Amino acid sequence: MNDIAIGIDIGGTTVTIGIVNNEGAILKEVCSATVDFDAPVTLVESVLGFFNSFTTEYGTEDFCLKGIGIGAPNGNSLNGYIENAHNLSWKGRIPLAEMFEKKIGLPVFLTNDANAAALGEMYFGGAKEMKDFILITIGTGLGSGFVSNGNLVVGHDGHAGELGHIKTENNNRVCGCGLTGCLETFISSKGIIETFKKMKPDDNNEPFISAGTPDITPESIYKAAVRGDEAAINTFRVTGEILGAKLADIVAITSPQAIFFFGGVSNAFDLFAGHAKKAMEENLLPVFRNKVALLKSELINRNAAVLGSAAYILKKYS
Amino acid sequence: MNDIAIGIDIGGTTVTIGIVNNEGAILKEVCSATVDFDAPVTLVESVLGFFNSFTTEYGTEDFCLKGIGIGAPNGNSLNGYIENAHNLSWKGRIPLAEMFEKKIGLPVFLTNDANAAALGEMYFGGAKEMKDFILITIGTGLGSGFVSNGNLVVGHDGHAGELGHIKTENNNRVCGCGLTGCLETFISSKGIIETFKKMKPDDNNEPFISAGTPDITPESIYKAAVRGDEAAINTFRVTGEILGAKLADIVAITSPQAIFFFGGVSNAFDLFAGHAKKAMEENLLPVFRNKVALLKSELINRNAAVLGSAAYILKKYS
Repeated sequence: MNDIAIGIDIGGTTVTIGIVNNEGAILKEVCSATVDFDAPVTLVESVLGFFNSFTTEYGTEDFCLKGIGIGAPNGNSLNGYIENAHNLSWKGRIPLAEMFEKKIGLPVFLTNDANAAALGEMYFGGAKEMKDFILITIGTGLGSGFVSNGNLVVGHDGHAGELGHIKTENNNRVCGCGLTGCLETFISSKGIIETFKKMKPDDNNEPFISAGTPDITPESIYKAAVRGDEAAINTFRVTGEILGAKLADIVAITSPQAIFFFGGVSNAFDLFAGHAKKAMEENLLPVFRNKVALLKSELINRNAAVLGSAAYILKKYS
Repeated sequence: MNDIAIGIDIGGTTVTIGIVNNEGAILKEVCSATVDFDAPVTLVESVLGFFNSFTTEYGTEDFCLKGIGIGAPNGNSLNGYIENAHNLSWKGRIPLAEMFEKKIGLPVFLTNDANAAALGEMYFGGAKEMKDFILITIGTGLGSGFVSNGNLVVGHDGHAGELGHIKTENNNRVCGCGLTGCLETFISSKGIIETFKKMKPDDNNEPFISAGTPDITPESIYKAAVRGDEAAINTFRVTGEILGAKLADIVAITSPQAIFFFGGVSNAFDLFAGHAKKAMEENLLPVFRNKVALLKSELINRNAAVLGSAAYILKKYS
């Protein structure tokens, strides 16, 4: 009998559902557009249907379902609710864990997507031997999961880990949250594009990218940097420097063994990580110097939130 | 039979040794100048002698010693060492926990002084009902202990919680650690005195304090503020504002239920806490607003490190 769990990653664009085993293999997986789930109950039914199709395909004799793990924006592990997620069409507070529990009668674990990815890194990725580390996801925004002595730091209300909203010294950009100078205004897709546009004004177009074109993305800036575009190279340098200075603060507080980078922008890890490491070291207390590794997630091409949320169930209930 | 533990607070100036019971009463206590202990072994012998005098006084039938707790500068709970404490004459790495264990054959817990104070607050102070909180000690320097889900955050090397060395936006002061702009350069005895001197230059002496006198202390500034001295009042306002802005960052990362203030400067809590709270709230993400209490330690007139380090032993081994 092989223990398995269902892992669900609810993103602003896509929902991924996977059947995960104890070795971190995803036995069956399906992706759907998030807008297809007009209400939470639609997702619940879809997941149950997906699991039925799994048992039809694989049989019921060899597998034992232990529960469901969910990574979702504003997912709160203390109460199992998705709370006011602004990038989902489901408004208000959704008791998603309880909705699943009532249907399947098994444990359900729900947390936010960055925390789920951090658990994935701990159980199946580069943090397997670690008890104290941080995972930072850089994509549309900046998310983070903090692990202390092998446990997620979620805080008294379940919302800890909002690293995207600590303040940079370069505090002149307005954030989507309404505050000014949040780290996310620099360390995110949008932030990197804005930095690039400042490096390369419209009236100074260079061969590789015109900043005036509407299709500037972190990926196109990355490609330009690889081809030697100076403004693109400097964009990742500045991004790394701003990030690294704040990582020094985080290390002073939590002293992690490593900081992992996940999410779309982390594909450009090689271009910003060296600068981030240098800036971090320059701002560290002597006791922390040359101790903290900056690492690319080992799950960067996999669904870390599906793996991590399912793994939490498997480790706790297997 | 009443369980007891020995609690030891090793400070730069004073060493306090106390016999603590499960209710947080200190049954017997002794204070000595730190310089009297020329070597760690002298402290070990002194503690054993103190415990013998306790048993002589109280008898051995009613009490069961469960172990020793120690709060010390640069105390590392992961290995029981005091590591390169610059305010002690004992240099290098001192295996103090092991030295005691060999003598008494009972559990010994050693951590840094701020962590020990945080444990004191959790077991016997204002954090009794809390699992996620921070304790900040403001005195000669700024120390901090972070508690997440009921456990100390010590990091992979045991040195987490160096809140005094995160960077302020007012980054023009050189810190004793060699870095510039550390929070401790503003939020400490020395930092507050420096802020006051900038508020009240020598050539603009006001009735209550002349900044040119050598005896300006946080206490004298506090007294001047209470009597209405504008520069002194503004000193605590600015101190609170700088502190509060950084507390917002800390809340975004760890989401504590409360932040407690301990240490000599915390006696001026009423003068800076309101400004700190206002600045914190202004810099918080909406999800954290009006949730985090700033509180004066309930152990401010007791030895929180003696209580906390001893309580750790009592809670774990009783």
